[in-house]
Amino acid sequence: MNRITATYEIESPIGITKAAEVMAGEQSTGTFGKIALETDELRARCAAQIDELTVNSVGHSPSLPSRFSSNSYERGIVKISWPIDNLGTSLPNLMSTIAGNLFELAELSAIRMTDIGLPKVFAKTNPGPAFGATGTRGELGAHDGPIIGTIIKPCVGLSPAETADLVQILAVAGIDFIKDDELQANGPHCPFPKRVEAVMGVLNAHADKTGKRVMYAFNITDEVDQMKRNMDLLSAHGATCAMVCMNSVGLSGLRAARDHGNHIIHGHRAGWGLYSRSPHIGISFPAWQKLWRLAGADHLHVNGLASKFTEPDPVVAESAKSVQTPVFYDRGPAHLAMPVFSSAQTIWQIQPARTLLGNDDFIFCAGGGIMSHPGGPGDGVIALRQAADAARAGISIEKYSRQHPQLRAALDVFIKPTLDLG
Amino acid sequence: MNRITATYEIESPIGITKAAEVMAGEQSTGTFGKIALETDELRARCAAQIDELTVNSVGHSPSLPSRFSSNSYERGIVKISWPIDNLGTSLPNLMSTIAGNLFELAELSAIRMTDIGLPKVFAKTNPGPAFGATGTRGELGAHDGPIIGTIIKPCVGLSPAETADLVQILAVAGIDFIKDDELQANGPHCPFPKRVEAVMGVLNAHADKTGKRVMYAFNITDEVDQMKRNMDLLSAHGATCAMVCMNSVGLSGLRAARDHGNHIIHGHRAGWGLYSRSPHIGISFPAWQKLWRLAGADHLHVNGLASKFTEPDPVVAESAKSVQTPVFYDRGPAHLAMPVFSSAQTIWQIQPARTLLGNDDFIFCAGGGIMSHPGGPGDGVIALRQAADAARAGISIEKYSRQHPQLRAALDVFIKPTLDLG
Repeated sequence: MNRITATYEIESPIGITKAAEVMAGEQSTGTFGKIALETDELRARCAAQIDELTVNSVGHSPSLPSRFSSNSYERGIVKISWPIDNLGTSLPNLMSTIAGNLFELAELSAIRMTDIGLPKVFAKTNPGPAFGATGTRGELGAHDGPIIGTIIKPCVGLSPAETADLVQILAVAGIDFIKDDELQANGPHCPFPKRVEAVMGVLNAHADKTGKRVMYAFNITDEVDQMKRNMDLLSAHGATCAMVCMNSVGLSGLRAARDHGNHIIHGHRAGWGLYSRSPHIGISFPAWQKLWRLAGADHLHVNGLASKFTEPDPVVAESAKSVQTPVFYDRGPAHLAMPVFSSAQTIWQIQPARTLLGNDDFIFCAGGGIMSHPGGPGDGVIALRQAADAARAGISIEKYSRQHPQLRAALDVFIKPTLDLG
Repeated sequence: MNRITATYEIESPIGITKAAEVMAGEQSTGTFGKIALETDELRARCAAQIDELTVNSVGHSPSLPSRFSSNSYERGIVKISWPIDNLGTSLPNLMSTIAGNLFELAELSAIRMTDIGLPKVFAKTNPGPAFGATGTRGELGAHDGPIIGTIIKPCVGLSPAETADLVQILAVAGIDFIKDDELQANGPHCPFPKRVEAVMGVLNAHADKTGKRVMYAFNITDEVDQMKRNMDLLSAHGATCAMVCMNSVGLSGLRAARDHGNHIIHGHRAGWGLYSRSPHIGISFPAWQKLWRLAGADHLHVNGLASKFTEPDPVVAESAKSVQTPVFYDRGPAHLAMPVFSSAQTIWQIQPARTLLGNDDFIFCAGGGIMSHPGGPGDGVIALRQAADAARAGISIEKYSRQHPQLRAALDVFIKPTLDLG
C-alpha cells in the first residue's frame, strides 16, 4: 500500500485520541475549520490515518509549556500514515510532512518522533550510501576487523604542516582512518586546499612506500558550491573520504555532496543534542538516521560507549545497531551505513562495541586511547586491534592480553570505564 | 576584534563557571586531556573565551537527563566568543562551532542558545536577502501597507486546475500574496510543473487585465538540483517567489536556492517546534533567524498572534521584531527580512501586528479570515486593509469600522481572540 508511517510518543491536554486526530489533520488535508474544498473524495485520497494508538499513562502537569492547559495529560504512542502520493519520494518534503508543524501544536505538551516507516519506492530517487562498509574496506585495501581511527587534536589551531606531521606519526603507527575535527573548517590558519595538499602528500607517500592506504575524512562542510570545489580538490589529490556536518548543511546539502564526485561520505552529527536531549521533544536516532542514509551518508557518528557526552550507553548501542538495519519496511536495498564510535574511547570500549553489533563493520575512533599508550601510538593501534580480535574470538581482553603484550600494556594504563549496557 | 559570540542559558551539575570552561574548550582547542600540541601560543590564537557569565539560581534537580549528577544545579547565562579565523565566515561551519557538540555535554543539564553576535565581515560571503521588503513591494507593483496574503487550503489534495480556480477567486478578491502549503510538494496529484503553469496562467491573465501582479510563493522545497529546476520553471512562467522549508533543506540548501535565479525566498520554518518548544534545550528565534537571513531568506514565518500553535504572543512579537533588526553587531548591511504572520489570523490580529512592528513591512496571511467574510473574499481582503489603515492612523478598529462597512461586517463575524502581549 506504499504508505509512509511515523510513530510518535506524545502527551496531550485533550487526550491521545483527539490529539492524534489533530496531528493527522494538520499534516494532511485539515485546516482549523472544515472548508468546502475538503471533499470526502479528497479526504479519502489524501488524509493521513491513525494506524495505531496506545494510551500509556495520565499525568497532571504538562511536560512542555503549551498554550492549552488541562487537569489531565494523557501520554501514549500514536502511529500515523500518509499516502505516498501526497508528497512523492523527496526527502526534504518528507521532513515537512512527518517532522513539520506538528511539533508546534498546542494540542500536544510533548512529542518525540521515534520511528519512520518508508517503502522501498523511496530507493528510486534516493540511492543511499554509495560505499557503506564494503566500499570503505575496498578503498582501504585488503582489510578485515573494525576500522581503527582517530581525530586530529587540537580540534583547531594546527597549521597544514603541523597537521601533516601528526598524520605522519599516525600513519606510521598503522592507523586505518583519520578525520578532521568538525570544528576544523576552512579558516586562514589552516585553509582547506593547503591542508589537503599537505596531508595527502604524507598519505600518498606512505601508500607508495608501504602499500597501505590510510583514509582521511576531510571536513568539506560548507555551502553547496564550495563543498563541490572541496570535493574536486580531494579527487585531484587522491583523497577518498569527505566529512559533512549533517545538521549544518541539511538533507539537501548532504545529498548534493553525495551526488558530486565519488567520495565516501562521513556523516558527523554535530548539533545532535538539539534533537535528542529532551525526553519531551525531538527525534530518536533510529528514526533520524534513516533520512541521512537515504541522503547518502556512508558513515554515521553514534557517540562512544562511556563517552564524555551525555547519551546513556543503551542509546548509543541502539543507535549503532540502527545504522546496520535495513532502511525500508518492504525490503529493497538495505542502504546500510557504518556506525562511528568516538569520544574518550580506549581498548575497553572496542569489545563491547563489537559484541553489540556482532560484526566488524564499524569505525572506532580513539585519541588518547592511541597516543597515550606507553609503547607509543604504534602499540596503541595494535592494542586496539588485539582487543577487537579478542572480541571476535569470544575471549575477555584480560585473558587475551596474556599472549599479547601491547594489549597487556594498555590494560595497565587505561582506566576501565563503567559501562551501562544492562 | 572580529569575534563571533554566542549566548546560552545553561544549567550545570558542576557549576556555571566550570561548565562554561568545558563549553569553550570543547568548541575550540580543548580535548578531554590536555595534549602536547595544544601549546600556549595555539590557545592564545584559537581558544574560545568566556566573555560574560552570570549565575541566576540554584536548583536541586536537573532539567534534562544527564550522565553527570549532583546535589545542586546552577542556572545562569554564559556568553562565549571565538576568533573568526578559527572557521572563517561560512554559515554551515559557524553552526558546527556555536551549535554543535556542546548540546550533548554531560556537564550541562540544560542549554538554550539565545543570541548570536556576528561581525559585518560575514556579509562578504553571505550577501543576505536579495529582495527584502523593498524588493517584495517592487515585484508587487505600487503598493503600501502590509502585504495581505493567504495559503491554499486544503494543504494537499487539490489538482492544478482546482488550485488555479481558487487562485482566480483570491486574485479577484484583491489579494496581494498567495502561498502553497508547506505540505504541497511535487506529488502525482499536483505536480509542480502543472501547478505552476495553471496558477501562473491565472495570475498572468489577471495582471494583464487589471495591472495588479499577485505574488504566489510556490513550494520549491526539494533536493538542490530539483530546486534549481523548479526555479527555472518559475522564471519561465514569470513567477517571482519561491517558498523553501528551511529545516527540510538546511542552510546550504537555502543558500543554493538564493543564489540560483532571481527569486524572492519565502522561508517557511516547518519543524521549528523542535528547536523552540523546550525551555531547556534549543535555540531562540532571534538567534536562529539571523542564520537564515544570512543564507538569503527574504520572508520568514513567525506564527501569528493568538494562533493555533503553542508559542505565546510575546514570543511571536519578539520573533517578528527580530527579523527587522540589523543582523551584525558592528553595522554593515542590515540584511532585513519581512516577518510573515499566519495561522488563525483575522482582522483582530492585524492591528496588534502592525503596532508591535511600528511599520507595514510584513506579510499577513489569513485563510478563514478572508474566505469567511459575510461579503465574500473581496470584502474580506478589504476589511483587513481597513484594519491596517486603522492601526496606521492610531484608531481602534471598532471606531474605524463606523466609516468602513467591510470592517464593520468582519467585526460582527470574527470572534475577538484574547491576546497576551502584556
